[in-house]
Amino acid sequence: MAVTFSPGPSQLYFTVEDHTRSAFKLGVPSLSHRSPEFEKIYQHTQESLRALLNIPSSHHIFFAGSATEIWERLIQNLVEEKSAHYVNGAFSEKFFKASQQLNRQAQEIRVADGSGFNEPALLDVELIGVTHNETSTGVMLPKEFIYGLKAKNPKALLCVDAVSALPYADFDYTKIDSVYFSVQKGFGMPPGLGVWIVNDACIAKANAMLAKGLSIGTHHTLPFYLKNGLKNQTPETPNSVAIYVLGKVAEDMLRRGIDTIRKETEYKAVVLYNELKQHALMQPFVVEKQYQSPTVIIANTGTQTQALADYLSKKGMEAGEGYGQHKGTQLRFANFPAHSKEQYELLVDYLKAF
Amino acid sequence: MAVTFSPGPSQLYFTVEDHTRSAFKLGVPSLSHRSPEFEKIYQHTQESLRALLNIPSSHHIFFAGSATEIWERLIQNLVEEKSAHYVNGAFSEKFFKASQQLNRQAQEIRVADGSGFNEPALLDVELIGVTHNETSTGVMLPKEFIYGLKAKNPKALLCVDAVSALPYADFDYTKIDSVYFSVQKGFGMPPGLGVWIVNDACIAKANAMLAKGLSIGTHHTLPFYLKNGLKNQTPETPNSVAIYVLGKVAEDMLRRGIDTIRKETEYKAVVLYNELKQHALMQPFVVEKQYQSPTVIIANTGTQTQALADYLSKKGMEAGEGYGQHKGTQLRFANFPAHSKEQYELLVDYLKAF
Repeated sequence: MAVTFSPGPSQLYFTVEDHTRSAFKLGVPSLSHRSPEFEKIYQHTQESLRALLNIPSSHHIFFAGSATEIWERLIQNLVEEKSAHYVNGAFSEKFFKASQQLNRQAQEIRVADGSGFNEPALLDVELIGVTHNETSTGVMLPKEFIYGLKAKNPKALLCVDAVSALPYADFDYTKIDSVYFSVQKGFGMPPGLGVWIVNDACIAKANAMLAKGLSIGTHHTLPFYLKNGLKNQTPETPNSVAIYVLGKVAEDMLRRGIDTIRKETEYKAVVLYNELKQHALMQPFVVEKQYQSPTVIIANTGTQTQALADYLSKKGMEAGEGYGQHKGTQLRFANFPAHSKEQYELLVDYLKAF
Repeated sequence: MAVTFSPGPSQLYFTVEDHTRSAFKLGVPSLSHRSPEFEKIYQHTQESLRALLNIPSSHHIFFAGSATEIWERLIQNLVEEKSAHYVNGAFSEKFFKASQQLNRQAQEIRVADGSGFNEPALLDVELIGVTHNETSTGVMLPKEFIYGLKAKNPKALLCVDAVSALPYADFDYTKIDSVYFSVQKGFGMPPGLGVWIVNDACIAKANAMLAKGLSIGTHHTLPFYLKNGLKNQTPETPNSVAIYVLGKVAEDMLRRGIDTIRKETEYKAVVLYNELKQHALMQPFVVEKQYQSPTVIIANTGTQTQALADYLSKKGMEAGEGYGQHKGTQLRFANFPAHSKEQYELLVDYLKAF
């Protein structure tokens, strides 16, 4: 089967299909989510993720249906009145709009697609939303900018969209209140599970809103997540197979070594960016080196877009389409742990020969 | 592997594992949910469900993470001020509480666990919630009562929890505004997908609330579901493997014949209820015949509960635990399409011999 470089749903991680098969053999699909057997799976996934991403005990890990759902839960649980959103693409904009849809006063700090931010502003809001890696534009914001936001706005809850950044991103979680992602990107799994990491300041804020008589939702509220999570359970009957597989994939990545995965990601990114810079028919969309994402690499391919996509497709490589208005003029290349160095070297060889 | 009679997550339908394997072979996990390939899967699942359950074109079918999520979405989208809930067990109560958590004026009409309703009341509310089959108590409310509710309250939106009732329940959807279920019960799938059926009156109500400037949520609002659904797409990256498998399972059930499935369900229910009535050590929990659910059959097993559960377990049959306060004194037996006549006959033989 062809390798897909689409940024998500993306190429499956090497072991996902086997783990899914094991889940069925072990009877995971029929397990009660209140059973000790499920609790063990939940705990294993939590511990594996914690070890892989170096998540400190100050932060809790909860499961939702998607990162899209988590945008909504963040606003419901953490914002009474005001949020601010750094917008530099379609996904950061969706979070901004979610806050508006929930009738909050949402402030937008915007730059053009393909650009980023490096000067933290002083913001009079309860929550700051920032997208570490914009999947639509291939911009990765510097971690120092993100930490700087928290330093400048210590009372605001800093929430980081890490959807296409993890497991590559090596965060200092003590400088972030919430991080979230979905599993169909860097973890190479089928879609249907979002992972929501929050610290106690987030839990406290949700409890404070609840104490004021404000609604923070029903089953996916932070206090209810925590109450269940402390028992290694979920609020509702969850996507248990995905929770099982995520734990196994995290374990596999731990065994491979997260440092190795990060170094390989950087190697593959350098190889592709170098080729894009030299190529006569394409260029990197993101011009400023400080913003060039290693995990989602976007090429301006102009009038050659369709021809190049078809050419790669015949070689067994499916490039991701440009996002939104960039659909006909760009191609996107995910650089996730499921993409091997050999595949990236081959991709570059094919690009050279195009 | 043992057969599980737990009402959910329950025994997998015979073909689920094979269809999951096919989904991986076909590359479903890596498909973009905006691609024509995904749209075909979406359409197939919609059409198969429509054919199987006889859902008229007046009703739309949308996908959520769980039935638990759908409780929240129903209130967010359809209730500005007031809802009423027929409560006769843990799940109908959870829906009632979801409305309270969203700060609506929620009215509760309650009977004791194991009992039901047959007199529709006149209710001054926007939404009436009723649970066709209470998974926690094994009570199935008569369809005539449900239709009577709509006849008596034509302006209220009648929303029917069919979680452990479908595909057995043969609804006249023209007399119901919304029906919802999750796939880990009668459809015999792993958990992680809720199915939400609504008519145009529901869409209109959500649009009217939106026009008033009220918030109805973000990605899982009815207008946004509809906008995407008309393109055979979902609002967010969905649990695409589950959507694929659900369509295939519905197709398999269609081939087997929904009438056959319904008749077999009734046969199996009669066989087990007859045994419970005659047995010296156990009785049906639901006494009134009109409320005895064919799909979730609950036995009062008193002090014999643990011994009986262990005995059946040794025979390769896992009974479901009693729910909540009934945990130590009842056993629950799901009677879904995944449970064969032979398994039910064997179960009854084992009960006789206990």
